[in-house]
Amino acid sequence: MDRRLTACEEDLVEYVFHDIKARRAGILKALTAGNSTFFVLIFSRDFEVFHQQCDPAKENLCLYGFPDEHWEFNLPADEVPPEIPEPVLGINFARDGTNKKDWLSLVAIHSDAWLNALASYFGGRFQFDRTQRKRKGNDNARK
Amino acid sequence: MDRRLTACEEDLVEYVFHDIKARRAGILKALTAGNSTFFVLIFSRDFEVFHQQCDPAKENLCLYGFPDEHWEFNLPADEVPPEIPEPVLGINFARDGTNKKDWLSLVAIHSDAWLNALASYFGGRFQFDRTQRKRKGNDNARK
Repeated sequence: MDRRLTACEEDLVEYVFHDIKARRAGILKALTAGNSTFFVLIFSRDFEVFHQQCDPAKENLCLYGFPDEHWEFNLPADEVPPEIPEPVLGINFARDGTNKKDWLSLVAIHSDAWLNALASYFGGRFQFDRTQRKRKGNDNARK
Repeated sequence: MDRRLTACEEDLVEYVFHDIKARRAGILKALTAGNSTFFVLIFSRDFEVFHQQCDPAKENLCLYGFPDEHWEFNLPADEVPPEIPEPVLGINFARDGTNKKDWLSLVAIHSDAWLNALASYFGGRFQFDRTQRKRKGNDNARK
């Protein structure tokens, strides 16, 4: 039987869940304008802004989602090693070598991988035990 | 009720599980010489080799685990965006700014995050559905 979490531990699991959920919401705005109809909306205004920013002539850039639900397409963190895991580098270089739908799919899969890396990292830093990881996993499943 | 996986799908889930498991085994060699007594063995020969390679005077380096269970501390992939998610960059720069145990813990947490990112990425690329992801998750839990 799972042990009961303390109030403080409950808060920390909730904190991580909401952090990841908000970052994911930010990325969804960039990729789908917040609508779940993924392929229909790849020509939406928000996606077009993101697509234009992904200029292969620019430096290596990363798509970030932030805990306040906004997204940025920006240079990687100056700090090395970075404070938290970084998203994939240089997705702008792949933009023009493939069709739009495949490129968008690549960005989405890499972004999901980044969110999972963040969840794992926070779980390790905050030393979540099996019960807490399970709870975080259940929370992520209802994102 | 979960649907039955086809033989081909079963193979793919097994393939990803064994890929991640072998990469993890490689990283464990670098960090613990394969022994589970984490803190006692931080002065083991294998760990000392890894520790020495993490020279802050070198370039930004990454700890890789490979599907044949070997590890390398090397430069990041030349290809951008990389074919698969990359491990954290520049852990060598953090080596001398903190005590050995804390630094090792940081490397271990980042390595776990990388393995989770890889699992997520493969799940997306191979288009695993909920049943397959659940099975992969169960497999990972018995690593």
